[in-house]
Amino acid sequence: MERPDFRKKIAIVGVGTVKRFGELFDYELSDMIIEAYLEALSDARNLEPKDIDAAWFGWAIPANVGGGGSGAVLSEILNIIPKPVTRVENFCATGADALRNACFAVMSGWYDVVLAVGAEKMRDVDARDALLHALVRHGHPLWGKGFLVPSIFSVHATVYFNKFGATKEDLANVAVKNHRNGARNPRAHFQRAVDKGRVLSAPIVSWPLGLYDCCPVTDGAAAAIITRADLAKKFTDTPVYLSGMGIATDFVAGIFTHPKRDFTSFPATTNAANEAYRMARIDASQVDFAEVHDCFTITELLDIEDLGFCGKGDAPRFVKEGEANIGGKIAINPSGGLKSFGHPIGATGIRQVFEAVHQLRGDVEPKYGKSGRQVPDAEIGLCHNLGGTGSIASVLILER
Amino acid sequence: MERPDFRKKIAIVGVGTVKRFGELFDYELSDMIIEAYLEALSDARNLEPKDIDAAWFGWAIPANVGGGGSGAVLSEILNIIPKPVTRVENFCATGADALRNACFAVMSGWYDVVLAVGAEKMRDVDARDALLHALVRHGHPLWGKGFLVPSIFSVHATVYFNKFGATKEDLANVAVKNHRNGARNPRAHFQRAVDKGRVLSAPIVSWPLGLYDCCPVTDGAAAAIITRADLAKKFTDTPVYLSGMGIATDFVAGIFTHPKRDFTSFPATTNAANEAYRMARIDASQVDFAEVHDCFTITELLDIEDLGFCGKGDAPRFVKEGEANIGGKIAINPSGGLKSFGHPIGATGIRQVFEAVHQLRGDVEPKYGKSGRQVPDAEIGLCHNLGGTGSIASVLILER
Repeated sequence: MERPDFRKKIAIVGVGTVKRFGELFDYELSDMIIEAYLEALSDARNLEPKDIDAAWFGWAIPANVGGGGSGAVLSEILNIIPKPVTRVENFCATGADALRNACFAVMSGWYDVVLAVGAEKMRDVDARDALLHALVRHGHPLWGKGFLVPSIFSVHATVYFNKFGATKEDLANVAVKNHRNGARNPRAHFQRAVDKGRVLSAPIVSWPLGLYDCCPVTDGAAAAIITRADLAKKFTDTPVYLSGMGIATDFVAGIFTHPKRDFTSFPATTNAANEAYRMARIDASQVDFAEVHDCFTITELLDIEDLGFCGKGDAPRFVKEGEANIGGKIAINPSGGLKSFGHPIGATGIRQVFEAVHQLRGDVEPKYGKSGRQVPDAEIGLCHNLGGTGSIASVLILER
Repeated sequence: MERPDFRKKIAIVGVGTVKRFGELFDYELSDMIIEAYLEALSDARNLEPKDIDAAWFGWAIPANVGGGGSGAVLSEILNIIPKPVTRVENFCATGADALRNACFAVMSGWYDVVLAVGAEKMRDVDARDALLHALVRHGHPLWGKGFLVPSIFSVHATVYFNKFGATKEDLANVAVKNHRNGARNPRAHFQRAVDKGRVLSAPIVSWPLGLYDCCPVTDGAAAAIITRADLAKKFTDTPVYLSGMGIATDFVAGIFTHPKRDFTSFPATTNAANEAYRMARIDASQVDFAEVHDCFTITELLDIEDLGFCGKGDAPRFVKEGEANIGGKIAINPSGGLKSFGHPIGATGIRQVFEAVHQLRGDVEPKYGKSGRQVPDAEIGLCHNLGGTGSIASVLILER
């Protein structure tokens, strides 16, 4: 059956983030959220808190701050009581899926203006106690043996190396590119370029993944204000449209041991992308830039292939030859990616949307980036998350 | 601005629950979910798992089973990989809000058939460790002093008693009614009638709330299949329409000490009801029956008033004179309510929808209830949840 045309129906009219992602020991969860929200509000024109009809809150680990995981927490922080707020949690796709549900509600016609917020406190809390210890205590088959996330992704890297002849240098090229982009981004956690020698000689976390192959653990928050396209011009001269959304699932408990598992791809990414491309009525070749889930450098290589930007096994060349650079064929992680920004789980998906909106507006420099960070003439951008070591993926497609 | 007409646009074509709510020590979370899902699937006609485009999963306390809180968990349990699944968590409105988001997605036009599932393991797990201990450890101002949920609601009761001259007998009338209804419901946790003497002489939990004024702690799961009205007749001869949905928030951290707090009402309930009534284009007088959030007997009295079924202070009379009985003015909790069913947090909102669908179809007896449990000629039903001791409320309105 023919699906409705979502193109240029949903507009993003305001975006904001905390002023800089990082180890925000002087921010509580509420401080981060308020800072991101106020920027999003002021980014839109003529928008008052009373105009917001409803909100969606992407927040993955409430236990980190000892709170209960309700949307009411956001409502109280932002003083938007009694507005309806839904809390969404979906592994590393938490922020993106919160925004997706906000967009469905706008498309339903019931709400005019809605808010999507993503936030996470990752540093100054007992995250390991709340999350990992609970999983270990309940007998998690891998984590209980100390087999944590870097170890899981390292197996993807070794299988990929074996199958396609890639090397640790191919991973390093991803780190060098994303650190270079992040060094120009005043909001990134890490704002320092690294050279390949430094990446290759860094301590190993789980071979072949060294320190610079892993994204940091970071606090952050981001917000986006969404409305129907026909109302957008009231709030901005430069609306950016959310034209495609896709979420896909894969095995959770069995993901690592499932006999069908191909360690050189994440099927959830491809399935989510297919839904988003179908909704936006585009294919991968039309994407000008993409914020992808580089939790580890190997993940970015697989993302580039799974999203259809190049063929299987071709991502190392794609990155090495500069096709993933700003100004290349498809700029990958022009913001600096998770590698530079870190990955506050609930925030990341909406932080990527913040980047995509500014890239599509063409106003990245100088406020959000030093010279060379603007993707030239970008018309279509894509944001991608991969969560639960492959058990969930999200793809959002934005166009100007 | 005029809102779109939601009446009879969203149809529920299949519902299911676990065969009986209770202390389900022989069920894992997955067992409960599969049983509820398979009943919902077979309740609809010509419906295959492949027809389900997407799902929403209401699950409030993943820590209870040591799992991560992603929709992918549901996808794996039901073997509907790679379908998109969103997990929603919103205190005691978790199940209702999962269903609400599913309905918005259907109204957007993107999905034809979607699934909403709610489930919770409450009994055979270290719930107190995962939830309460974490809150206490992080310095919760009330819970850290042993001031738990019954204590909080007991204050509502004493203030209500003082203001309106109500007594423990008025609370007992609620317990007697809901146990009487639950005694006729083969799916309820407690299926035994109690008399007023027994209720009044029961041990006190937190004065004036005795043992029979408190709902039990229970395992359970429920599922609903939702589609657009124009597709509904393919799947059922008796569609039930979801015509109104409302969620409202209130103070979380400050709810108990906020100077504006009126302990004789929950503003979130009234705000959620107003949104739902507006969407369904009805008022409270048109409701034939309601499943309301009777976590404690005092809560049901406040619910009845906050939803607009009678005036302030009039709920004790409303219950005492039988207006809340099946066959009365507005049957309140014909299923037996949380009082008889227990309250598996993520499941309750969808378990109430299961009841409402069967009441509106008129097929409660004999499969889902002994003689006298069918609300006669019901055309409009309402489902209500109150969470976070008043910080969130949901209202759903269903019509045949």
